[in-house]
Amino acid sequence: MRFHAQVVVRLKPGLLDPQGKAVEGSLPAMGWRNVSNVRVGKQIEFELEAPDERAAAAQVNDMAARLLSNPVIEVYAVELRTASAIPTDGA
Amino acid sequence: MRFHAQVVVRLKPGLLDPQGKAVEGSLPAMGWRNVSNVRVGKQIEFELEAPDERAAAAQVNDMAARLLSNPVIEVYAVELRTASAIPTDGA
Repeated sequence: MRFHAQVVVRLKPGLLDPQGKAVEGSLPAMGWRNVSNVRVGKQIEFELEAPDERAAAAQVNDMAARLLSNPVIEVYAVELRTASAIPTDGA
Repeated sequence: MRFHAQVVVRLKPGLLDPQGKAVEGSLPAMGWRNVSNVRVGKQIEFELEAPDERAAAAQVNDMAARLLSNPVIEVYAVELRTASAIPTDGA
């Protein structure tokens, strides 16, 4: 089966986010003074072939933990759906 | 009202994604040979104060188009929910 996976990698809460601060710093000059807590993360998507959804989910979690994120400073969230299917789980 | 916004910025389909290619290049050495079409984007989240949801959505779209993305090479998707509410729209 073919799956479409999305992994969102965020800095752990509480850690300083220089990219987010840079965005925040540029907001007032553009007239936006009502924005706070800007955090910038990564969004990775890809397709994979796997025998079933359980195998796909296990691999995507493994990829997220070992390759796509740095577990010391980041957390990740995984969304998986069968490729070409209509998303049913908020994906 | 207080809103929580998430903006996902992706490279336009068809454009070369060097970060995605770098991820793909490292997959075989880690034993994953069933992955393709890796694309790396940005995920930005923040909070904002706005009088109502319409005003918040307009501002977040404006921010995404003018500050958070490069419309020449990127597309963006916006998700908005009232802060502290349970997500009802896939957010």
